[in-house]
Amino acid sequence: MTDKITLSDALDGLSEFWSQQTVAEANGSLFKVAKGIGSTRWHAHDDQDETFLVISGRLTVQLREKDVVLDAGDLYVVPRGVEHCPTADEEVRFVIVGTTITSNAAGGKPEWSANGGSPLGL
Amino acid sequence: MTDKITLSDALDGLSEFWSQQTVAEANGSLFKVAKGIGSTRWHAHDDQDETFLVISGRLTVQLREKDVVLDAGDLYVVPRGVEHCPTADEEVRFVIVGTTITSNAAGGKPEWSANGGSPLGL
Repeated sequence: MTDKITLSDALDGLSEFWSQQTVAEANGSLFKVAKGIGSTRWHAHDDQDETFLVISGRLTVQLREKDVVLDAGDLYVVPRGVEHCPTADEEVRFVIVGTTITSNAAGGKPEWSANGGSPLGL
Repeated sequence: MTDKITLSDALDGLSEFWSQQTVAEANGSLFKVAKGIGSTRWHAHDDQDETFLVISGRLTVQLREKDVVLDAGDLYVVPRGVEHCPTADEEVRFVIVGTTITSNAAGGKPEWSANGGSPLGL
């Protein structure tokens, strides 16, 4: 039997922005935590819907036709194939639910994050 | 394109304890909100894992071998086939993630809830 996950503890353990850490799996879906600041790259997931649930802060999910502004306790599903670019002016913490396989595992993680850096050289 | 879901608004709209309301669907999973007080019946879902994420209050997921106590921001997966009985001393609000089909749609909803009543005749 697995243990419960305290999301704040899992989020405290994250060292890199826009990198997802899996905390649980159920029915072929992965529950992941991530924190973000600045923006990812524009990207899409052709094989899965991506569900965002904000824990703290504000996440703006930019779509080509509109922006969806998510505060703590807001949930939003980016349908498969839809281009999106999450962005945050200040640190935001959120849960992502996706599937166990994806053709785009990196999502839109920006170069500065992949290199262990910070947005805008901060 | 769907709209964002503000979980607190969806939860405010619930009129019955232990009844799940679907707020979003993604990758064959349903995201549902529910509120509870008192207990459900002991039950299991043979065909799906059930994920609980507490929004406010405390939910104790009783299992046959232990109790799992969940506070706001805690997540727990009850694996398929595992008997469980959620209980709450005071009102708890939570998200449940399951699949779009289930052999046990009613879950453990107690009689008093199905009849539109309250726990212990309150």
